[in-house]
Amino acid sequence: MMNLADLTTPYLLLDPDKMRANIARLQSHMADLNVPLRPHVKTAKSVDIVRRLFPTGSGPITVSTLKEAEYFGAHGFDDMTYAVGISPDKLPRVARLIRSGVRLSVLLDSKAQAEAVVAFAKRDNLALPVLIEIDCDGERAGLRQGDGKIVEIARILHENKQFMGILMHAGGSYHCPDKAAKEAAAEHERETAVAVRDELLAAGLPCDVVSVGSTPTAHFAKDLTGVTEVRAGVYVFHDLVMAGIHVCKLEDIAISVVATVIGHRPDKGWIMTDAGWMALSRDRGTAKQEVDQGYGLVCAMDGTPYTDLIVTNTSQEHGVLSIRKGSKAKLPKLEVGSKVRILPNHACATASQFDGYVVPDGDDLVYWPRINGW
Amino acid sequence: MMNLADLTTPYLLLDPDKMRANIARLQSHMADLNVPLRPHVKTAKSVDIVRRLFPTGSGPITVSTLKEAEYFGAHGFDDMTYAVGISPDKLPRVARLIRSGVRLSVLLDSKAQAEAVVAFAKRDNLALPVLIEIDCDGERAGLRQGDGKIVEIARILHENKQFMGILMHAGGSYHCPDKAAKEAAAEHERETAVAVRDELLAAGLPCDVVSVGSTPTAHFAKDLTGVTEVRAGVYVFHDLVMAGIHVCKLEDIAISVVATVIGHRPDKGWIMTDAGWMALSRDRGTAKQEVDQGYGLVCAMDGTPYTDLIVTNTSQEHGVLSIRKGSKAKLPKLEVGSKVRILPNHACATASQFDGYVVPDGDDLVYWPRINGW
Repeated sequence: MMNLADLTTPYLLLDPDKMRANIARLQSHMADLNVPLRPHVKTAKSVDIVRRLFPTGSGPITVSTLKEAEYFGAHGFDDMTYAVGISPDKLPRVARLIRSGVRLSVLLDSKAQAEAVVAFAKRDNLALPVLIEIDCDGERAGLRQGDGKIVEIARILHENKQFMGILMHAGGSYHCPDKAAKEAAAEHERETAVAVRDELLAAGLPCDVVSVGSTPTAHFAKDLTGVTEVRAGVYVFHDLVMAGIHVCKLEDIAISVVATVIGHRPDKGWIMTDAGWMALSRDRGTAKQEVDQGYGLVCAMDGTPYTDLIVTNTSQEHGVLSIRKGSKAKLPKLEVGSKVRILPNHACATASQFDGYVVPDGDDLVYWPRINGW
Repeated sequence: MMNLADLTTPYLLLDPDKMRANIARLQSHMADLNVPLRPHVKTAKSVDIVRRLFPTGSGPITVSTLKEAEYFGAHGFDDMTYAVGISPDKLPRVARLIRSGVRLSVLLDSKAQAEAVVAFAKRDNLALPVLIEIDCDGERAGLRQGDGKIVEIARILHENKQFMGILMHAGGSYHCPDKAAKEAAAEHERETAVAVRDELLAAGLPCDVVSVGSTPTAHFAKDLTGVTEVRAGVYVFHDLVMAGIHVCKLEDIAISVVATVIGHRPDKGWIMTDAGWMALSRDRGTAKQEVDQGYGLVCAMDGTPYTDLIVTNTSQEHGVLSIRKGSKAKLPKLEVGSKVRILPNHACATASQFDGYVVPDGDDLVYWPRINGW
């Protein structure tokens, strides 16, 4: 863990006011639509942040790893969905969590997984709730609406009282810059969810949980009738990818990497910093967006972006700042030792390069540790 | 730190025999050329590994962060070069290391840095050795051969007895698939180094250290006359990028990410695993090579690659395995729960996603922790 007395760059700076506004904005939208949030903690991975998402400070949450589940469980969170398809070798860790008092649902999309999970739960006499993953847009895992396997698997689970419902993630909404397209993605996610639920009910099965979500669809949904919960993660911080598809504004982005200028290459139009890919991550999520932000958009320490100054190249511990291709902006004068803030392409990836957040607190700084790994 | 009793995927597997062979191969080549190695520990970041690079177990080493310097210093390493341009705010941490008994050289390429370093050393009465960074191929930081600033800066440093010599890194060699091109890059690196040294000697200045290196040039150098040390890092593990430019063979790659199959999309020709970009990193270093390996090449657990099976897409905790574009190979039959090993594009980036290495040791497994962060 970072010693703040030794604070040297690169470090990850969190603006708690921007974060609070991001949290409030989605909470308010969900309240308007009368659907509870089950935030995905894979972005923040910090109790200091995740507690701020809830009035009671303890959930419900979505996790992407069992390490997150164990960490948040140890900090009093007791209602979680592990939203990555379960493999049988992970069930002993799941069982230990459930025995410790956590209500943990697992996810699957095959008969083989369902049979393994039922056999494990029976043998261990374990209350192990299960959701079936549905694919609503061809982006990742899950069964398609209309696939007979959904009812077949639900029945296997229901016979052992393990079937809770369905879960889907509209990952395709990340490619939707237009408002209408994001609204359509949200409505398609809802319609698919409700249609699958209706197929299950028609087959005489329950479907208590109808879980949908992605940061773009959560913000652009106009109606969530039939949905019982919404998941979203990156909205807590937002990032250049979200700004690039107009889910947030640049000024909403709550995290940045603070870097120091360590040199210049006037012959090449480069300013060198000490934030390379180890700090920024290799994520190039804006590469195919309308505006390619390189490895990040460079701002002054007060948060104002320099005109067209981006991180155009990185090696492990070096970042190259230069003016965006095609722009006539002038390279700002930044002496060796100057500090800059770099907005990330993808908050989940950039935050994962650090073991915590440096957070202004009045005139002081505090450190909020995060966990990585599995 | 990972509890091996709970070992679940994804984890980072290290083959110690392959690593030993990689280490021995470069050591032997350097012995033939009669030049000592100063290995770059930014790839391994583990004392359990770095001790195995030296008969005495303690250096000399090259570091990319002050955290590495502090960690290796605490483990008895006392001769280090910090090979990223120094910024003045980092000097107090440098001073503390030097006072603890570490001989730590810093790197710079501007008069402003030299003046700051000299002023700091004088004020603190500190023996703070300095190298000047030279750019031999236009890839990154440093002054070009012939630039009058080299002698000017060396003189400022020499007047305070701080000037040790020069350092360069032939980063351009990473783009050289041909043997002749790698040999030429190595010879160009050496020639540039010797020419700069001669300019310094002609100006009446010393130049005790002539430090060159990159994994490709270190392996393909035929003559290192005039060079006093060679730096290289990724050779300890090697990776798909190095294999793609024929610095190693696929079977030399000593680390892989072990993943579990968590699902199938027969409609898309996908096998889903639990190793996404969080485990593999976002590095796509082979994207512009002759053979694009996606996010990694997939092998059976015995290390045999599946024909043309690569990681074609990733999200945070999901990996998509499919057959390489243009290939007629058939998707192997891998049931849910099957394990695979994924060879990384870039060992430095993939290893940094983990907090340690799982290492076979006879019939057991041991865990070698590594450090990340700054």
